[in-house]
Amino acid sequence: MASSQHHQPSSPGQKDVPPYELLYWPGIPGRGEHIRLAFEETSTPYTDSAHVEDGMGLVTSQISANNLGDALNPPPLAPPILQHGPLLISQTPNILLYLGPRLGLVPSVEEDASGVYRVNELALTALDGLSNEVHDCHHPVSTGLYYEDQKAEAQRKSQDYIKNRLPKFLAYFERVLSGEASRGGTWLYGGVLTYADLVLFQCLDGLGFAFPNALSRLAKGGDYAKVFALYENVQQRPNIKKYLASGRRQQYGMGIYRHYPELDEP
Amino acid sequence: MASSQHHQPSSPGQKDVPPYELLYWPGIPGRGEHIRLAFEETSTPYTDSAHVEDGMGLVTSQISANNLGDALNPPPLAPPILQHGPLLISQTPNILLYLGPRLGLVPSVEEDASGVYRVNELALTALDGLSNEVHDCHHPVSTGLYYEDQKAEAQRKSQDYIKNRLPKFLAYFERVLSGEASRGGTWLYGGVLTYADLVLFQCLDGLGFAFPNALSRLAKGGDYAKVFALYENVQQRPNIKKYLASGRRQQYGMGIYRHYPELDEP
Repeated sequence: MASSQHHQPSSPGQKDVPPYELLYWPGIPGRGEHIRLAFEETSTPYTDSAHVEDGMGLVTSQISANNLGDALNPPPLAPPILQHGPLLISQTPNILLYLGPRLGLVPSVEEDASGVYRVNELALTALDGLSNEVHDCHHPVSTGLYYEDQKAEAQRKSQDYIKNRLPKFLAYFERVLSGEASRGGTWLYGGVLTYADLVLFQCLDGLGFAFPNALSRLAKGGDYAKVFALYENVQQRPNIKKYLASGRRQQYGMGIYRHYPELDEP
Repeated sequence: MASSQHHQPSSPGQKDVPPYELLYWPGIPGRGEHIRLAFEETSTPYTDSAHVEDGMGLVTSQISANNLGDALNPPPLAPPILQHGPLLISQTPNILLYLGPRLGLVPSVEEDASGVYRVNELALTALDGLSNEVHDCHHPVSTGLYYEDQKAEAQRKSQDYIKNRLPKFLAYFERVLSGEASRGGTWLYGGVLTYADLVLFQCLDGLGFAFPNALSRLAKGGDYAKVFALYENVQQRPNIKKYLASGRRQQYGMGIYRHYPELDEP
């Protein structure tokens, strides 16, 4: 699969395009990773607060209680934040929605005017069930408390997640890949890679770090063969492969995906 | 505020427009309510599975494990679902994104090409903190278990929500309304009602049912005066007022917003 196998970007000329600037917490892949993968897959230049001096300060000044935004942009509540010329927007699925047509990661309006709503739907669903809920597994009571202060609740939550929620979402995406709208079952929608595939890849990658035993059992079981093939297919794309091996890819740690052996299955 | 005070819909001609069909669980406002309010505010005709025979069956057949979608549409994981001619999409913020330009509830591309990304950002943030997290308050461990089986965890979670999370989100939206991009502080973005305002209204309304004591204290405290004024301003809009008094508005019950007195503050 050549990395050029994308939809047509909505503004192919690169002249006079302002730089894309990603603001996200340095030190973890986190929600920022979904944005990075879109840039990396499409060889789109971007700056990343994870790799600049005082990147942390850039983020905290944006989400400060004193920031009222500007004439064009409301203040962001939390990162990831994208700056693109005068535009400043936040919320992972919203940034992807903005980048999708610009980077050729959704069908163009000419070929499929409603395609973007299907891609957005799939990305939102992956983020709900395979990212946000995974964060809740280690922090089911309060994001303001330490894990150690909600460990009993985290164990109950994680057991339920592994037993019920994770298979539910994997089965859903297997169903999407088995449906006609996927056009062949390699990619989630329309037979061509979209940002929904990148989001699903990153969610599965993070789950493999958080719950390695559970995910490996589910992968081996064969019920979600298309889902795990998609994971491999994204991982093997030349630009993604290069990126994952580079210093730009940060290690998992104390972010959304955390590995506490006691929360995984034995 | 006249109900005609909207943005220009992207396709003002009503001829040959297929009907809008909302599929959502009958019996509770739930996530479907955000979609209903968009239709009601703009006097847009729609059908609603809440009010047809076997509405429940219409929803369950869509989310059945046997449904693979069709040639155009992936299967939905969960309602709300919108059918509009050949299009079938799910995910609350995604449906609103689709309806926004069609109903004049976002700035038109001509007046503000990036406005839709700001409105989407605000709607996503309200749904995250003032809807999804509120559901987690009564079901912090598992959506598959009864409340009674996770009551201790629900109490810890709700206490944290009322003390930390709810004020955080109210303060955020007060900040948005105090910023220049709101153009005056009546509506969240651009000086005109958008669907983000309707979402925030519905979230506050549900919170007032779930946590009446906490919300009334926060309203009286005066720190979020603009937020609660927005609530009143939406509630007083002629079409919304008529709708809220009609039989189409369903009562809160065992949905996202539930009232368990022991989870509220005294």
